[in-house]
Amino acid sequence: MMQLTILGCHSATPRAKAHPTSQVLDIRGELMLIDCGEGTQVRLRGHKIKFSRINHIFISHLHGDHYFGLIGLLSTFSLLSRKAELHIYAPQGLKEIINLQLKLSHAYTSFPLVFHQLDSQQPELIFENEKLTVETIPLDHRIYTNGFLFRAKPKDRKLLIEKVEQLNIDKAYYKSIVKGKDVETKDGQLIKNEDLTEPPELPPSYAFCSDTAFKPEIVPQIQGVTWLYHESTFLEDHEHLCIKTKHSTAKQAGIIAQKAKVKKLILGHFSTRYKQLSLFEKEALEVFDQVENAETGKIFRYD
Amino acid sequence: MMQLTILGCHSATPRAKAHPTSQVLDIRGELMLIDCGEGTQVRLRGHKIKFSRINHIFISHLHGDHYFGLIGLLSTFSLLSRKAELHIYAPQGLKEIINLQLKLSHAYTSFPLVFHQLDSQQPELIFENEKLTVETIPLDHRIYTNGFLFRAKPKDRKLLIEKVEQLNIDKAYYKSIVKGKDVETKDGQLIKNEDLTEPPELPPSYAFCSDTAFKPEIVPQIQGVTWLYHESTFLEDHEHLCIKTKHSTAKQAGIIAQKAKVKKLILGHFSTRYKQLSLFEKEALEVFDQVENAETGKIFRYD
Repeated sequence: MMQLTILGCHSATPRAKAHPTSQVLDIRGELMLIDCGEGTQVRLRGHKIKFSRINHIFISHLHGDHYFGLIGLLSTFSLLSRKAELHIYAPQGLKEIINLQLKLSHAYTSFPLVFHQLDSQQPELIFENEKLTVETIPLDHRIYTNGFLFRAKPKDRKLLIEKVEQLNIDKAYYKSIVKGKDVETKDGQLIKNEDLTEPPELPPSYAFCSDTAFKPEIVPQIQGVTWLYHESTFLEDHEHLCIKTKHSTAKQAGIIAQKAKVKKLILGHFSTRYKQLSLFEKEALEVFDQVENAETGKIFRYD
Repeated sequence: MMQLTILGCHSATPRAKAHPTSQVLDIRGELMLIDCGEGTQVRLRGHKIKFSRINHIFISHLHGDHYFGLIGLLSTFSLLSRKAELHIYAPQGLKEIINLQLKLSHAYTSFPLVFHQLDSQQPELIFENEKLTVETIPLDHRIYTNGFLFRAKPKDRKLLIEKVEQLNIDKAYYKSIVKGKDVETKDGQLIKNEDLTEPPELPPSYAFCSDTAFKPEIVPQIQGVTWLYHESTFLEDHEHLCIKTKHSTAKQAGIIAQKAKVKKLILGHFSTRYKQLSLFEKEALEVFDQVENAETGKIFRYD
C-alpha cells in the first residue's frame, strides 16, 4: 500500500487556496513528511494526520516555500510533549536555523531531534529499515537541492498453499520458502521455490523531484517508479523563466516521465500566475499518457 | 481615526480557525503590523490589506506564535519586488534569524530592511513622525518581551471661523492660531487663543500588551489609553498556569484596565484549551465594564 496526500503544491508565496509544497507519503505504514511550507501543520490537522505518526521529515532545499512551516511544526510537537525521536533529512544550514530559533526562544524540543545533513552531489542512501529505503535524487536548482526516492522493499513471495500441503511439506519450512528458499522433502526430493510460491506484487516506489531544471540525468535512477512527482512551475510559453529560475515546464516533466517509463506522473509546484491548472496536465499529456495534476487535499492511492 | 484588525488572537499552536497573534493597526493612515505568527501573510491577503502599505513591523518577543510568519512575509515582499524601506522593531536575535535564512536561500531582500533591535528594560520611544509616536512597554514574560504604545499626536485646534471673521483677523494668522498661538489685532488688542479655537478631539492611543504576567507597573504608562489589548491566556481557574508560564488571566487583564482607566479593554491570546471564549469577557467584566474579546477577522474602529 502506498498513499500520497498533497498538502500543498504551489510555488512561492502562499495564498488562501494555494499552499506551498508539502506532502505526506504513507508507504508500508511509515509516514514520511516531504517538504514543509508555511502552514503545513494546519493542513496536517485538516487531514487528521496524527502528528505522532510523523518520525521522518525530508526537506528538498532551503527556499522558504519548502520549509518555512517546519519550525512551527517542531514547536507544536514540543507543546504536545512529543517524546519520540524525530529525524530531519535536509541540506546543511537548516540545523543552524532551527537551533538558533530554539535558542532565542529559550526553548528546547521535548524530543530528540536528529538532523541528517545532506551535501552529496551523488545519489545517497539516507534511510533504510525492513520495509523501505530512501535515496536522494540530486537535482539542478539555484541552490543545493535533492529530490527523494522512496522504495518499498519486496514483500515475501506468496506461498501456494495447495502445493505445499499436497507435497506434505512441514510448516516449519514455510518461513524460509516465502523468502525464496528451495526445500527438500522427507524422501530427499528437491522442490524448487518457484513451484511452491508466486512472486509478490511489485513493491511501490515514489520519486519526488522538486525543484529542478530539466535534468535527464535523473532518468536511470528513477526508471520504472510507480509514481513520479515532478515539478512543473511553468508552461512551455514561459520556458525562458525556467532557464532563469531553474525550474521545469510541464512538457519537460512529461519527457522525464516518458524516458523513465514511470507508471504515473504527478505534476505540481505550479506558479500562482496560472489560473487554469488543467493546462499543465494537457501539456505533459502531449509527451506522456499517464499524467495527473497534484491538487491541495488530493490523495493518491496504490494498493 | 484608528482601526485595529485582528488577524489572529490565539496562543501557541495554529489551527484552522485559531490563528496565532497578529494585528494591523491603522492609526492616522499609518499601517502598523504588530506581531506576525505563522500564516499572517495569508490573512493579510484575506483582508485585502495592501502589502505595500506596511512599512513598520513590531515584534513583541521571539516565541514562535508571535513571529514565525515574518520570514514568509518578507520573502513575499521580495517576490513582489518591493522597493520601499521596511522597519522591524524586535528583540535582539531576530535580525540574526532572518539574515541566516536569507543567506541560506541565496536570497537578498529587494528592499532595504532596517532592524531596530530592542533591549531596554525601560519604556523607550522607538518611532516618531508628525502623526504619531510608538513607545515600548516592557512586559514580564519568560523571555525578553515588549508591548507597544501607539499614540496619535494631537491634531490642530479647531478654528472658530465665525469668531475670527467677526474680529476681522487676517487669514495669514490662521495657521498659527490652530497651533495654539494668541493673536494681536490691527488695533493692538491681544486675543487669547481659547477665544478663537476649540480643542481638537482627544488623539487616539493603543496599548498592545502581549505576552505578560500580571504587571501593574505598566499602569502609569498606559493611563487613559483609548484601547488596551491585554493578553488573557487563561481564566482564573488556571491561574497556577499563569504563574508557571508568565501569562495573565482575564481578571488580571481587567484589573490592569480598571487601574489604568482605559476606554476599552480588548482581550486576546486565548489558550486553545478553551472552547467558550465568552467566558474571558465575562470574567474581565467582573472588574471592568468596557471589555470586548478579540476575534479573528474582527475590526475595531474609533472615529
